[in-house]
Order: sequence, then C-alpha cells, then structure tokens
Amino acid sequence: MNDDKVKAAQMAVELIPNQAIVGLGSGSTASIFIDLLAKRANEEAMDITCVATSVQTSQLALGFGLKVVDIDAVDRIDVTVDGADEVDGQLNGIKGGGAALLFEKIVASNSTKNIWVVDSSKQHLNLGSYRLPVEVVKFGVHHVYNYLKTRDLKPVYRQQEDGNYLTTDSGNYIIDVDITGQKDLPQLAKDLKELTGVVEHGLFIDVCDVLLVGNTGQAIYKDQL
Amino acid sequence: MNDDKVKAAQMAVELIPNQAIVGLGSGSTASIFIDLLAKRANEEAMDITCVATSVQTSQLALGFGLKVVDIDAVDRIDVTVDGADEVDGQLNGIKGGGAALLFEKIVASNSTKNIWVVDSSKQHLNLGSYRLPVEVVKFGVHHVYNYLKTRDLKPVYRQQEDGNYLTTDSGNYIIDVDITGQKDLPQLAKDLKELTGVVEHGLFIDVCDVLLVGNTGQAIYKDQL
Repeated sequence: MNDDKVKAAQMAVELIPNQAIVGLGSGSTASIFIDLLAKRANEEAMDITCVATSVQTSQLALGFGLKVVDIDAVDRIDVTVDGADEVDGQLNGIKGGGAALLFEKIVASNSTKNIWVVDSSKQHLNLGSYRLPVEVVKFGVHHVYNYLKTRDLKPVYRQQEDGNYLTTDSGNYIIDVDITGQKDLPQLAKDLKELTGVVEHGLFIDVCDVLLVGNTGQAIYKDQL
Repeated sequence: MNDDKVKAAQMAVELIPNQAIVGLGSGSTASIFIDLLAKRANEEAMDITCVATSVQTSQLALGFGLKVVDIDAVDRIDVTVDGADEVDGQLNGIKGGGAALLFEKIVASNSTKNIWVVDSSKQHLNLGSYRLPVEVVKFGVHHVYNYLKTRDLKPVYRQQEDGNYLTTDSGNYIIDVDITGQKDLPQLAKDLKELTGVVEHGLFIDVCDVLLVGNTGQAIYKDQL
C-alpha cells in the first residue's frame, strides 16, 4: 500500500462519527479507507452502516466485516469518502476514471457531507489535465459524440483493451472530453447533463466539503475557502 | 383500424418527401403511419430510409418492406412522425405512456422536423391531464422519488401487471408525476433533467413542428402560432 494514501485514508477515518451512514467510493484510495474504517469500527465497537458505489466496493466492505445496505434502504447518507481524479482550488473536481461516476455521483448527491481523499498530484489550479468522462445512452451515442465535437470538446470513446467501447454498470458508453480552456464549468456541467442521451458526467461541482491530501497532510475545508 | 387515426397518419405520409430519412415513433398511430408510408413508398417508388424508436417499430417497418437503419448510421433525421399523449396550445407535449420516451426523445432531438399525429382528445390548453413519465436509474431511485415528492409532484412508480416496477429498454425505472398547476414547464423540464439519477423525462418542449389532428383534419404549424 502507498504510504500517502494510507495517511489520507486514516485522516478520513478519523472524521467518521459513530452511528454514521457512510458512503463508500470506488478505487484504490477508497479501498484503503474501507480497510481502515473496518479496523476502527471493530476496535471501537462503532455502529457504522455503509452504502457502496460499486459491486466491488460492496464486496470489499462485506469482506472486512462492515455492514452494507442498499442505497434505497436509507433516507440519507451522512458522509461519503471517495477519491477524485482531479481537484481545483474551489474543490470542484473530475471523477470517473474508473467508469463508476454515475453511482458515485448518486451517492455523493445524497450525502450530507463529502470527503475526498487525494494526493497533491491531483490538485490543479484549473481542471482539464484529466479528461472528463460523460456517460451516454448507447442508442444514438454517435449524435452526442458529434455534438461534443462541435462544442470543441475533442470527444473520444472510452475503449476496453479489446478495442470495443467500454460499457458501464448501467449499460451505457463513456465519452471522454477535453475541458481545457472551458471558462464556466458550472454552465458546462448543466449543458452536458441537459443533453438528451447524456445520463451523467464526471464534473462534480460544489460537491466536496473536505479535501484530504495524503502526502502533504493537508485538510482543506470548503467552508474556509 | 380507427378511421381518425388513419386519416391523420395519411396526412403525415403526404408530408414525407422522397429520399427522406424518416424517424418512426412507437405506438398505435405510429404503426398505422408505418403501414401507409410503406404503401406510398412502394406505389411511388420512393427512396425512404427509416430510423426506429423501438424494436417493435423496427420489426413492423421491416415487415412492411421499409429500409430501416440504426440511428448511428445516419448523421441526421429529416422528419420524425410520432404520436403524443397530450399536447398544449404551444405544441408542447407529454410522451412516454408506452415507456419508449427515451429513444423517442433521442430520435426527436436529432430530427430536423417533428410531426405529431393525435386526435383532438389529446389537445388541452395546459398539460397535466396526463401524468408525466420520468425515466430514472435504478440505483438510488428511492431518493429521486423522495425529491419529486418534496416538489409536490405526487410521484408514482410505474408498475407491470405483476406488481413489479416496470423496467425500460435501457434498464431504468419510470416514475410518473403529476404536473397539474406547474406554471413554468420549460424550467420544470430543465430541473428534472438536471437531477442526478434522472435519465430523461417525457416533457417535449419546443419539439413538435406540425401537429396533425385526425378527427378534425386540422394541421397546426408551430411557425404559424
């Protein structure tokens, strides 16, 4: 395990109150968090209920002895801990490198608080180093692709190793776009979501409440920006 | 066949130019249109290419000898002919009674012209007699349902005859909502589509260009409103 990731994940674990309903992100940092959360919950006899953003995350948490329930079994999630592919100075970010952005966004948008765990290589003044994933219904995907091209977003279909288009857990395709130079990200987020055929995208605007940076030990609170 | 529906469908067939790429709606009126379109195309040796909004429509058109291609095989659709569940005085409408709203909207939004074929019982000054279908990702659907409830939209899950929730062709659920008394439909349409978890909804704002009313023989053009 990467030491910085462990440090950041440990910082996140310490922010979880007893009796919390906790959203579990997907990806490598989230996996470390789950491991450490299970250890603390066990040692301190905490009553923690988890909601997972993917089947893998769910299985991992169950394997560590955590209690996992379906998202529809709870009325709200207290705090979600997840990674991010890129974060800017306003704590807006891009997620979806692992193609789990739809479920991650559904869990995040139903969470009272969202904690992101990253290392400083993910922090940039402006977003765009990382391509933005857009999840699109298969039927008519070519037309969405063409529209994104006319918007100068340089769309590229996400492919599997065998060259076929990757299909998400919800049966959609992913088109990755280049948002370098886009000035108004909240407006871009609205425009993309409004498109017929677009299910969701990986721009997380005004979602993250606390950013934990493993290698620097920094904790940045949105309230204090 | 219902005489009024035949009359309206025949009016639509007469608006189709040779060499058109034609979008085919789903439902009973669309079925009559397909039959009559095939007859005219055959009699007049027209070169017509069709794009279907459902598997059933595709099979029907192929059965009548029409040429059907995938939506992603064409760069645009010239004209789409479809029914509607309800239409107001501005030619805005509600569609999705048959749960095909997502593919219908994708085809409609990529069509240069949209013709709707109805009878006068579907025409109302304001929309709302018909419930509005909202297509929602299964994961977390309960949270979208709760949100719609807080918006006073009286949500109801669409069920199959066996009591289970109906699943659409894209693997989502349908929640039907009551839009009676909603003053700003374009804003409601935006708000619904923007919700994380919502894939699409059946409000078709500013989509219909020509409304054909079978039992009155009326043709209403949006340009002339």
